[in-house]
Amino acid sequence: MSRLRRLVLDVMKPLEPDMTVLALKLAELEGVEGVNVVLIEVDRDVENVKVTVEGPDLNFEEVKGVIEGIGGAIHSIDEVVAGERIVEEVKTPQDD
Amino acid sequence: MSRLRRLVLDVMKPLEPDMTVLALKLAELEGVEGVNVVLIEVDRDVENVKVTVEGPDLNFEEVKGVIEGIGGAIHSIDEVVAGERIVEEVKTPQDD
Amino acid sequence: MSRLRRLVLDVMKPLEPDMTVLALKLAELEGVEGVNVVLIEVDRDVENVKVTVEGPDLNFEEVKGVIEGIGGAIHSIDEVVAGERIVEEVKTPQDD
Amino acid sequence: MSRLRRLVLDVMKPLEPDMTVLALKLAELEGVEGVNVVLIEVDRDVENVKVTVEGPDLNFEEVKGVIEGIGGAIHSIDEVVAGERIVEEVKTPQDD
Amino acid sequence: MSRLRRLVLDVMKPLEPDMTVLALKLAELEGVEGVNVVLIEVDRDVENVKVTVEGPDLNFEEVKGVIEGIGGAIHSIDEVVAGERIVEEVKTPQDD
Amino acid sequence: MSRLRRLVLDVMKPLEPDMTVLALKLAELEGVEGVNVVLIEVDRDVENVKVTVEGPDLNFEEVKGVIEGIGGAIHSIDEVVAGERIVEEVKTPQDD
Amino acid sequence: MSRLRRLVLDVMKPLEPDMTVLALKLAELEGVEGVNVVLIEVDRDVENVKVTVEGPDLNFEEVKGVIEGIGGAIHSIDEVVAGERIVEEVKTPQDD
Repeated sequence: MSRLRRLVLDVMKPLEPDMTVLALKLAELEGVEGVNVVLIEVDRDVENVKVTVEGPDLNFEEVKGVIEGIGGAIHSIDEVVAGERIVEEVKTPQDD
Repeated sequence: MSRLRRLVLDVMKPLEPDMTVLALKLAELEGVEGVNVVLIEVDRDVENVKVTVEGPDLNFEEVKGVIEGIGGAIHSIDEVVAGERIVEEVKTPQDD
Repeated sequence: MSRLRRLVLDVMKPLEPDMTVLALKLAELEGVEGVNVVLIEVDRDVENVKVTVEGPDLNFEEVKGVIEGIGGAIHSIDEVVAGERIVEEVKTPQDD
Repeated sequence: MSRLRRLVLDVMKPLEPDMTVLALKLAELEGVEGVNVVLIEVDRDVENVKVTVEGPDLNFEEVKGVIEGIGGAIHSIDEVVAGERIVEEVKTPQDD
Repeated sequence: MSRLRRLVLDVMKPLEPDMTVLALKLAELEGVEGVNVVLIEVDRDVENVKVTVEGPDLNFEEVKGVIEGIGGAIHSIDEVVAGERIVEEVKTPQDD
Repeated sequence: MSRLRRLVLDVMKPLEPDMTVLALKLAELEGVEGVNVVLIEVDRDVENVKVTVEGPDLNFEEVKGVIEGIGGAIHSIDEVVAGERIVEEVKTPQDD
Repeated sequence: MSRLRRLVLDVMKPLEPDMTVLALKLAELEGVEGVNVVLIEVDRDVENVKVTVEGPDLNFEEVKGVIEGIGGAIHSIDEVVAGERIVEEVKTPQDD
């Protein structure tokens, strides 16, 4: 079985609990080494954040469970990396 | 015989199964070390993604088979690397 | 328990005490290795600064306490990193 | 005798055989370590690709022979590197 | 006690003594390892320069004393780094 | 005696011999380690190329001799590096 | 005594002697390790060049003497680095 190494997620969440709580909860999951959460936009009751999770063996359902557990929702999966090592997106002339 | 080391593919796929399933299936192929899938655009029933596959000995037909197996199609091959080591595209004044 | 590794904060503070005092006070907190404070904008009585704090085990409440202790306030949390190692935000085509 | 280390070529080729075949054939040449082929533009019957070939001792006539052997043609030589090691193009204020 | 590691200062100074004298005098201070001075703008009698000072234990009052000693003035403190190691400013989507 | 380490030259040359011949001839000179030639612009009978030559002890007259020997001419010297090691051009606020 | 490590100078010089002569003469000075000279602009009788000099112990008066000795003049000092090690200019939000 191959393994998930990185997930980049576009997430909508309530203002509370704040981003530190979300990051700490995701970092507690088995198979997760580190979590980065950046603020994209704040609205009246919700905020839009980008979540990057990396580790040797991520479980997408568990990640989703933590996000939904704090009242958030995944708007889109923006990047997935799987395999024995992390492969970065390669830019080509077709991206211009 | 020389070997394929990297493929960058412009792919159209149905919304289900999601990008994590595609990345995991490609990463299970023999000769593949890592897979990166990024979202380009979402339409009503399909999504356009860019797939980067790297490994010591990629089999293009097998990669194509996995993509078609989940109901997807390769729109274009955007980059191919072959040989004993990965050579990056070199920018020249002719690219400006 | 997972740990906070980096906080990036948008802070409003009075002109006195100056940025060197704020940086030194934050750097004295337990679990903090280094602090970066940059000036964003100066108004008549206050200045807007961006604070980046890194360390093996940050305590958000203590960081907040130091900022409020010099008469400042956190406008927004712009980035949080948690886990065993620092993960950087990954740019994807969805950011363009 | 000095040696060719890198060639960057602007190539027009028929749609078939595809870019993977061109890259694999070039990578089989003696003195070639790696080959990168990126898609620039697709027309009705042909496609324009950029080919980067690197190795300790490239033979330009053989590279040209492979490209013509699949029905392609070199439009222009965009970069040549020769000598004991690869020297990159240096940007100067005259390039702006 | 935590320590100052880097100061970036916006400085107005008379044309004489020149930038080499200012840089050498700052580099002589205890706790300073290196000094970078770049020219921003020249007016009739004064010039605006940006001063970057780095070292294991900077003393802001001494740095200020040297600048005022040559007839200059600090317009603003643009960056301060404190702690056991240098932390760089982190860019987030809120900076765009 | 100090030594030339890098020359960047703006060169006009006839279409024949091609850029591979020019690069190989320059790389054969004593004191040259590597040569990079990029295409800038093609006219009816001539092409404008940028030549970067690096090595521990370049002889400018010999480099000029090779270029004139294939019917080319140096339009301008765009960069010269001399000394015990290569120093890169440093960008300052005065370049903006 | 602290030491000068880098000078970046905006220089006006006659067309002859050319940039290679200026670079070689500066590289011969004691305390100089390497010299970079780039062409900025050519006028009828003079050319404007940017000179970057690096070494463990530069003597500004000697550097100035070489430039004036070939009929040139320093228009401005654009960057000075002094101390035990080279410190680079740090960009902050105030530079935007």
